[in-house]
Amino acid sequence: MDEFSLIDTYFTPFVHHRSDVVFGIGDDAACLDIPAGMQLLVSCDTLIVGVHFLSDWDPYDIAYRAVMVNVSDIAAMGGYPCWVNLALTLPSPDCAWLERFSKGLHCALKKYNITLIGGDTTCGALAMTLTIHGLVPKDHAIRRNGASVGDIIYVTGELGAAALAVLHLKIDGMNEVDKDIIMEKLLHPIPRIDFARDLSTLASAAIDISDGLSADLNHICTASQVAAALVLEAIPIHPLVKKYQGNTALDFALSGGDDYELCFTVSPTNEPLLLKRLAQSNLTCYRIGVIEAGSGLRETTLTGDSQLLEPRGYRHF
Amino acid sequence: MDEFSLIDTYFTPFVHHRSDVVFGIGDDAACLDIPAGMQLLVSCDTLIVGVHFLSDWDPYDIAYRAVMVNVSDIAAMGGYPCWVNLALTLPSPDCAWLERFSKGLHCALKKYNITLIGGDTTCGALAMTLTIHGLVPKDHAIRRNGASVGDIIYVTGELGAAALAVLHLKIDGMNEVDKDIIMEKLLHPIPRIDFARDLSTLASAAIDISDGLSADLNHICTASQVAAALVLEAIPIHPLVKKYQGNTALDFALSGGDDYELCFTVSPTNEPLLLKRLAQSNLTCYRIGVIEAGSGLRETTLTGDSQLLEPRGYRHF
Repeated sequence: MDEFSLIDTYFTPFVHHRSDVVFGIGDDAACLDIPAGMQLLVSCDTLIVGVHFLSDWDPYDIAYRAVMVNVSDIAAMGGYPCWVNLALTLPSPDCAWLERFSKGLHCALKKYNITLIGGDTTCGALAMTLTIHGLVPKDHAIRRNGASVGDIIYVTGELGAAALAVLHLKIDGMNEVDKDIIMEKLLHPIPRIDFARDLSTLASAAIDISDGLSADLNHICTASQVAAALVLEAIPIHPLVKKYQGNTALDFALSGGDDYELCFTVSPTNEPLLLKRLAQSNLTCYRIGVIEAGSGLRETTLTGDSQLLEPRGYRHF
Repeated sequence: MDEFSLIDTYFTPFVHHRSDVVFGIGDDAACLDIPAGMQLLVSCDTLIVGVHFLSDWDPYDIAYRAVMVNVSDIAAMGGYPCWVNLALTLPSPDCAWLERFSKGLHCALKKYNITLIGGDTTCGALAMTLTIHGLVPKDHAIRRNGASVGDIIYVTGELGAAALAVLHLKIDGMNEVDKDIIMEKLLHPIPRIDFARDLSTLASAAIDISDGLSADLNHICTASQVAAALVLEAIPIHPLVKKYQGNTALDFALSGGDDYELCFTVSPTNEPLLLKRLAQSNLTCYRIGVIEAGSGLRETTLTGDSQLLEPRGYRHF
């Protein structure tokens, strides 16, 4: 099977079409219409076997998760996803593998109304780079640098389950029901696209928690030239992380990556609107701290203790 | 050195700025303004050590060539390049390597007024995926599917030198001057961006010759549902390919990849305008055949012989 029949068999026939795609797969480049009043968002993520996923994972999950990881970056900007390029590196064109991969890819793309517009297939150790394109109303993208002193810090969900799943891949001792729950969090993260519109109108800064809450919140602080004080009791720790990690559960929630929840800040003025919007939605957000003057992170407790919090998260090297 | 200091040291400081970049490196996604009346072009290419380049190449050349390979895809559509994402996979953050790579990357991007808007750095075998974004006036992108019976086939330059260079990497017996010339063709291909505007107004179909003339022209034929008859004596073979390859020189020109010249078709009506534009430019294009009814490729000679030509080129698997 050569590159072209591979594309014709596993990718082109399943493409979910959007009307703004002038043309996609099959030329030297795809061609896209950008609606007036919108700005283009672009992000990419590479996932490598043995680093970001394991070779024995169902290829369906590998593809599905790769899409969600990328969609989360668009959600964090307050945009919505539109088109994706897939650069896929394979040791060999394994039909059974490609069929499952293709299914997971197209299921994930369809779920968010995303068109696969092109890519590249090459021969080498299994890896993929997805480049995702989204749209956001002009001047409404939410950046990392917009947090101000007094803003309130939120996260969009419970943390630590994906990191627990990564740990569990290497150890035993978890019952099957619990294992299924955390593997679901690792393999099928839910990017917060439904929340993106509210984010783009209400938040002052946002980031997706891919490397860990403390590391990623620290990026907001650095970009915004502010500090953050987190209330440790307020950090939403996934129940299974509490169950299995005991004393280290909070560490998992603070520094475990792969959750793909969003951390965002909102001004005191916008907070009532946020709470109203959340009450109308199915999403629970957790108020975990406030933005302060200074730099870096501080952990506080309800009893009034306070100390420096070293930002920690996934290190790429 | 972690991911963020790597980006801060070797990438962010050297970014060539364009005014249409609302913001680039440093958020979960870049944000871009698309001018009214333009359509977005997107293409990506992956380059892997040992497949698309060798580990002992100057990292400057690896980066420079990676950009040019991507720019060529935008040129083939009749567009101009604007922004690029770089997904870079490294075995380790080697400062000397990164410094040369960064120099080559930024030199190449500046040359074509392209902004590096983001990317990803990961740990693994050396590889990179560049996703390039270009613009083209609405409805003026040149596709592969526009060739009509009677159109004339052109290529933008002499062929085979890059394939000769790839071969030469494995054998000896070439003098240093000649070697420098062909390595220059391999390492520093010149994408035909200067010609893209003429292409978008005059050509009926186009493709960049990355996999080899016969394979890539065959893509035009398949997409356009036509056949092509090539005049063998008219194929522009690089002089050094003739010198070193003798009887197989034509094969190199027909099936050797990595030249990044363009193959395009033009209607008999537009051909006089094309010749006029070429006379005003520094570019030499070669008239190599005609589009016919049917499918596949045919090779003809000035003496009237004719036979089927099997399209051959680089196979990715």
